[in-house]
Amino acid sequence: MNNPILVEVLRGSLVESRHRGAVAVADADGAAVLAMGDVTTPIFPRSAVKALQALPLVETGAADALGFGDEELALACASHSGEAEHVAGVTRMLTKAGLDAAALRCGAHWPMSQSAVAMVARATGEPSALHNNCSGKHAGFLCVACAKGIDHADYWRPQHPVQREVRAVLEDLTGAALSEDRRAIDGCSVPTWAIPLQNLAHAFAKFGTGRDLGPERARAAARLRAACTQKPWHVAGTGRFCTEIMQLFGARVFVKTGAEGVYCGALPEQGLGIAIKCDDGAGRAAQAIMAAIIARFLPLGDAERAALTRFVHPILRNWNGFEVGSLRVMDRNLPPPL
Amino acid sequence: MNNPILVEVLRGSLVESRHRGAVAVADADGAAVLAMGDVTTPIFPRSAVKALQALPLVETGAADALGFGDEELALACASHSGEAEHVAGVTRMLTKAGLDAAALRCGAHWPMSQSAVAMVARATGEPSALHNNCSGKHAGFLCVACAKGIDHADYWRPQHPVQREVRAVLEDLTGAALSEDRRAIDGCSVPTWAIPLQNLAHAFAKFGTGRDLGPERARAAARLRAACTQKPWHVAGTGRFCTEIMQLFGARVFVKTGAEGVYCGALPEQGLGIAIKCDDGAGRAAQAIMAAIIARFLPLGDAERAALTRFVHPILRNWNGFEVGSLRVMDRNLPPPL
Repeated sequence: MNNPILVEVLRGSLVESRHRGAVAVADADGAAVLAMGDVTTPIFPRSAVKALQALPLVETGAADALGFGDEELALACASHSGEAEHVAGVTRMLTKAGLDAAALRCGAHWPMSQSAVAMVARATGEPSALHNNCSGKHAGFLCVACAKGIDHADYWRPQHPVQREVRAVLEDLTGAALSEDRRAIDGCSVPTWAIPLQNLAHAFAKFGTGRDLGPERARAAARLRAACTQKPWHVAGTGRFCTEIMQLFGARVFVKTGAEGVYCGALPEQGLGIAIKCDDGAGRAAQAIMAAIIARFLPLGDAERAALTRFVHPILRNWNGFEVGSLRVMDRNLPPPL
Repeated sequence: MNNPILVEVLRGSLVESRHRGAVAVADADGAAVLAMGDVTTPIFPRSAVKALQALPLVETGAADALGFGDEELALACASHSGEAEHVAGVTRMLTKAGLDAAALRCGAHWPMSQSAVAMVARATGEPSALHNNCSGKHAGFLCVACAKGIDHADYWRPQHPVQREVRAVLEDLTGAALSEDRRAIDGCSVPTWAIPLQNLAHAFAKFGTGRDLGPERARAAARLRAACTQKPWHVAGTGRFCTEIMQLFGARVFVKTGAEGVYCGALPEQGLGIAIKCDDGAGRAAQAIMAAIIARFLPLGDAERAALTRFVHPILRNWNGFEVGSLRVMDRNLPPPL
């Protein structure tokens, strides 16, 4: 349990902070392509598995029945910034299901986006559950309950049929046994299940390729992936890593952040899945590592490599815009592919 | 450079994240009372030394000449949340010096306080340099320049007499040589100097006791300490750790946060100074460690011990207020006093 230092934060010429972590890259057969640090102890993937949690929305036919397009499906997989179009999209999802924001049980929080905070403050004064970064996922859960014709009131509880189905999907994709002692409560109150990084990487390789999923699930995975990579702004928001990476690479890269320093992703053309956890929960480090992993495994043109560099080695600027430091992924600590 | 794990973050019954770090506790002679991890490599103390950076404001007579009371002096030592009374206080400091917000060179950022963000959005739409958490420190620097009768335009630059004086004060208190290769730029654009934790702990023992400071400097230190511990809301803001700890203990404890997981403090009655740095820059861990160090070294009544527990072992709640986890300081990793 001594994970390597994967990212250094420099201020001036000195290292100011350090982030340790673990990384698993696997193929769709579950073979390890890269394993750094502890990839076998279960970790909470948090929001990084939202696209897997959204599979029942497509598989049950709920998305089709409600006429959901890419934006709605991307929102179901999103940790969005609470910007106006995110809120409008989630509202549309609920309206199509004959519901409204009162059905959401994710809790309210101010939007992640500072400009969205200002807009909400000017307009209504207080944030609602619609601004919660998980509101699209919750709207998706509600739609599954409606499509199944079951009471949606307790859709977030572990015992509710919707969450039982989500759990079964996660077990199918990850191959991990989700026993009760691995269950905790996520920020938005639904269950989060601790799963080893190597299993998460395998799951995202399957999600990215459809392999071993069965035809229905493979189609649902392809549709969610297409939605996220075609509408990446709906998966996160203005200036966010998930959005900018998927804008850059389109269908070639799927990435999704989770709280406490988690990142999951897929490189469909390479048949690879990726799972990253920073020991200390730092998102800034997890995303720099994800950028470095993409740079390692995705064939890149010069322009793409240049565009990716600012995510692998981001420059830190202060409130006056002065360059004060940078993040440095310890590439030399990334072993060559196994 | 393998600092111990000092804080674990639990979600449900599992450890979700871990924070490593180093801690130095020293007396006013510079003797190590506690040393965990690497306390000799220079680290950037950032805003944790604002009270030391404010010494010239008192020593030069500027504070007296401008009629500054405890609130203004506390603001000069503050990383404030940008709430209305913080902004009003800094404005007052500038007005007394015949200046206004245009003289500040700290840069603008949205207030740390989410409710203050909402208020600013409703009122003026955009934050100003007054909302920058460092605006009180910067106002203090400007007042020193004015008191010295020197041009204040470049007060933030390393070569300006104000910053030269601040550097000399830091060298005097810490006993560390602040060579150019240890200088970087802080978030608010003034220099930040890398200093070993053991020297920072020694400096705060001197700051807390006045020992070895000379009569003028000792008086200035006592006055700033009194201002901060009597007006702790002005040092941070509503719900903030620095504020709540100093409200709880009054003159018995001085604490100050710095960016990237730094905390410094003094226990004047015990003659001790404290300096903490989390490897990964996590403030949540640094403050829990500070609470644990206070619990270790300050004699506590039952009510005080109970009040401190929620800072040593904070409960984590989600957006619905459900208890989802907690922070756990690894007390068993804290050695007994040397």
